[in-house]
Amino acid sequence: MIGEVIAVDWGTTNRRAYRLAADGRVLAAIRDDRGILSLTPADYPPAVAALRVRLGDAPVLIAGMAGSTRGWREAPYVDAPADLAALARGVAPVAHDVAIVPGVALRGQRHDVMRGEEVQALGAVAAGLAPRDALFCQPGTHNKWIAVADGRIHRFATAMTGELFALLRTHGILSGMLDAAAVDGAAFRDGVARGAGATDLLDALFEVRARVLLGALSPGDAASFASGVLIGADVGARGDLAGRTVHLLASGPLAALYAAAIGLRGGDVLAIDSEAAFTAGIHALHALLPGEAQ
Amino acid sequence: MIGEVIAVDWGTTNRRAYRLAADGRVLAAIRDDRGILSLTPADYPPAVAALRVRLGDAPVLIAGMAGSTRGWREAPYVDAPADLAALARGVAPVAHDVAIVPGVALRGQRHDVMRGEEVQALGAVAAGLAPRDALFCQPGTHNKWIAVADGRIHRFATAMTGELFALLRTHGILSGMLDAAAVDGAAFRDGVARGAGATDLLDALFEVRARVLLGALSPGDAASFASGVLIGADVGARGDLAGRTVHLLASGPLAALYAAAIGLRGGDVLAIDSEAAFTAGIHALHALLPGEAQ
Repeated sequence: MIGEVIAVDWGTTNRRAYRLAADGRVLAAIRDDRGILSLTPADYPPAVAALRVRLGDAPVLIAGMAGSTRGWREAPYVDAPADLAALARGVAPVAHDVAIVPGVALRGQRHDVMRGEEVQALGAVAAGLAPRDALFCQPGTHNKWIAVADGRIHRFATAMTGELFALLRTHGILSGMLDAAAVDGAAFRDGVARGAGATDLLDALFEVRARVLLGALSPGDAASFASGVLIGADVGARGDLAGRTVHLLASGPLAALYAAAIGLRGGDVLAIDSEAAFTAGIHALHALLPGEAQ
Repeated sequence: MIGEVIAVDWGTTNRRAYRLAADGRVLAAIRDDRGILSLTPADYPPAVAALRVRLGDAPVLIAGMAGSTRGWREAPYVDAPADLAALARGVAPVAHDVAIVPGVALRGQRHDVMRGEEVQALGAVAAGLAPRDALFCQPGTHNKWIAVADGRIHRFATAMTGELFALLRTHGILSGMLDAAAVDGAAFRDGVARGAGATDLLDALFEVRARVLLGALSPGDAASFASGVLIGADVGARGDLAGRTVHLLASGPLAALYAAAIGLRGGDVLAIDSEAAFTAGIHALHALLPGEAQ
């Protein structure tokens, strides 16, 4: 019988930690900004001790960028296709009763990596929030698309959609033009149509400026159009979505924009609570670890 | 009979000025960093007076960003298709014996704008450096592709290739990975193959990082690969270049990378001296101005 576990989703800028009951229920949760960018390797042992003070004394399972070369200690990637059992075999002990979940690597014609998203996708399947064959989308700075087949992460892709939008908004010739909130509407949908399937994305981005200068796009709509171009390019790269269901691991304004773009491409969207997916994934992994198989 | 003229290519960060003889020969030249970003509108009259002190007293014809809303005074765009006569009709007087050449706008299904490049492209044709039907490429922060048909700028496109590379090199997750010089070689050519025709450019950019992390790309080659992805996407967006000649208005390392990518896509490259093209364009425009038609 397995016991309680502390699950930590340790990202680049943020951290979420949960105390999970033996049956997987969330007993307590913490969210803060102690992401890996604010920590050196020496900071992790006291940070984990502090988590235990607040959440109770239990084994700690960490996923996310804390397992990268820029985090606490590298937990080597497991290769796709990967299921929960493969992740469990790759879990790397890092201190007494503290271990790090490996990320997943894709090698071959395409190369890609993830750390943390694998727990959400496979956790969603383990908890029955998504079927064993499912396409997941996790919008963010680096949007992940994960194709799960028969409960295994089969293929995935990372799009720099959010990062590029942030760079263009802050620096360069479009800065100052993209300060309004990007919202779903005619300008966003025009952008999606321009970006989806485009082989000239570099031209489409400059067109934001040209359209504003020539009066073809109101300055207040420029951010929505540019967001549409980028999200349209991102969603459009997933091939034919007609009749397919995309399991969206996100909430808030960005999720709404992705849902709109996926809908425009013919896909159906099912929103999944990413925290529920994450804790389900850690709970399932914890049950698979050797020390727990008693 | 036309007289001498001072031709100024007044760009965002740099400025070039030439005294041209009545027959178009360059009698003297200045190049400095007094681009529009370093000037307010009130700075232009004394700046032009200072140019005349150094280059002699002659009418001044200015092209480039000095005619934008962020420059001295806006010279409204003329619409494509545009030839030298259309540009001449749009030349905007801004002070005694000083005038600004208009930029060119593309309106319709696609929107685009240029300021300064039109003088180079049409000047190259006027001087016989390129035929009256020619495709021009002007690599830079914002790469221009200009299709001239029967001596008129017919269509053009602006790709944010250089700006995006600079943003990725300086900010975000790829920063620190792209500091080496981008050079033509296997990594660059792999990047061109990855980027050309890609509908998933946002994925290809993240792949730079994934390939390095997974040992599929040496860190020293990352800049060349990323440059290849972006330049490949840019060149690949121009359709089938097989058997076509691209007139490259550039020199130096960036021109070499574009020439390599164009060659990989089957195109032939003819390099054109952009300064000769510019001065030929201003000389031809000057001859077309009403005050000179005596």
